[in-house]
Amino acid sequence: MSNPTAAILIIGDEILTGRTREGNAWVLAGMLAEAGIELRQIRVIGDDHGTIVDAVAELAARHDHLFTSGGIGPTHDDITADAVAEAFGRTISVREDARALLAAYYAGRGQELTEARLRMARIPAGATLIDNPVSVAPGFTVQNCHVMAGVPAVFKAMAEAIVPTLKGGAPLRSRSLQMMRPESQIAEPLRALALAHPGVGFGSYPFETEGRYGTNLVVRSTDAGALDAAFAALKAAFPEGK
Amino acid sequence: MSNPTAAILIIGDEILTGRTREGNAWVLAGMLAEAGIELRQIRVIGDDHGTIVDAVAELAARHDHLFTSGGIGPTHDDITADAVAEAFGRTISVREDARALLAAYYAGRGQELTEARLRMARIPAGATLIDNPVSVAPGFTVQNCHVMAGVPAVFKAMAEAIVPTLKGGAPLRSRSLQMMRPESQIAEPLRALALAHPGVGFGSYPFETEGRYGTNLVVRSTDAGALDAAFAALKAAFPEGK
Repeated sequence: MSNPTAAILIIGDEILTGRTREGNAWVLAGMLAEAGIELRQIRVIGDDHGTIVDAVAELAARHDHLFTSGGIGPTHDDITADAVAEAFGRTISVREDARALLAAYYAGRGQELTEARLRMARIPAGATLIDNPVSVAPGFTVQNCHVMAGVPAVFKAMAEAIVPTLKGGAPLRSRSLQMMRPESQIAEPLRALALAHPGVGFGSYPFETEGRYGTNLVVRSTDAGALDAAFAALKAAFPEGK
Repeated sequence: MSNPTAAILIIGDEILTGRTREGNAWVLAGMLAEAGIELRQIRVIGDDHGTIVDAVAELAARHDHLFTSGGIGPTHDDITADAVAEAFGRTISVREDARALLAAYYAGRGQELTEARLRMARIPAGATLIDNPVSVAPGFTVQNCHVMAGVPAVFKAMAEAIVPTLKGGAPLRSRSLQMMRPESQIAEPLRALALAHPGVGFGSYPFETEGRYGTNLVVRSTDAGALDAAFAALKAAFPEGK
């Protein structure tokens, strides 16, 4: 029984131009590992309608779940909702429940529900809303595509709302061992261990600190017994590891 | 005259499993903007041979340049060089100049050039080497694909070696204006400005600080005159911006 698969699509010129260091994918990657949903790809694209339509259609077709980040605010560069609607062949219009959420929110702040703000109530036909406890304007799910905001606090809140509702598998667990030896010294015994434990992923990540080279060895598996056996073998092979 | 295009391919299970927050793409994105090379896509995939081959072939065909990060070290999970060779239909073997670099480096440290370390001298036929001033093991360029290490300090050094050698275009410049008004209040005038300045990208990025909402407005263009005109119009429309 393999776990369901997922992709993340990050939408925004601010990432591709180097203005913003992306972090939402990292936050969601951790949640998906815990939920037993296998993340296969992260993709970052710009604010271009055709590019978004094509990427959504491709990634939604190839994975059990697609999560998007960015482009659902009130400004002219927020074009994700329309592109997602097109990718799934749905119409899109202002939806009454989303409009009511926004109307109540702005009324409570003594502000008008302007035309720009109303854009955030445009939802593809047949979608379900994703709650936004931070700033009200909702995300939505169309088929297997979960559309979320790019603002980190809102993205995280929406991901925390949607991920627990999805059918996951066995959580991906990992254990790691750090040692002050360069990767190239441990490569050969590590290869033998990886071959001996086929259900477990073995990763090797070099680092440097104060001019000395070290390595973090990581074992990962959705099978807890296999993970324990692999980690025990790793510790036996590298007794200096911590 | 449009600028050359590029994609970045990040290779590593440690990103997809949420262990590591990716940062190399952000570093390179800034360099590419400055060099006048238009970054169209960033993609993150796992340590899987077939997935790497397919992604390299697709992204190299669709862009003027492809930059990869990760998977060129000495351990069993370092499979990028072989996959890149396959994507371009090249053979791969230990190359004498790369072997000589490694031999000198390890001899200088009183260490052996083991079989694992020799893996880092495996280079696809016809490639040119990319200098690694940090830890010697080189990157390489095959056709339009620039293969670099994943360790951040090494990645950055390799990118600094290769990007200035590429033929770029006009640098992408940006200017920004910050104001303590929510995005939804400035959306309508901003849309009008964006329509009036078609050669300039207008981005709107909301933030929240101490319970108050603000917006960063960013204009971007490779045309310096158009950028100045757009920024002047932006300042006139939002005199409170800083």
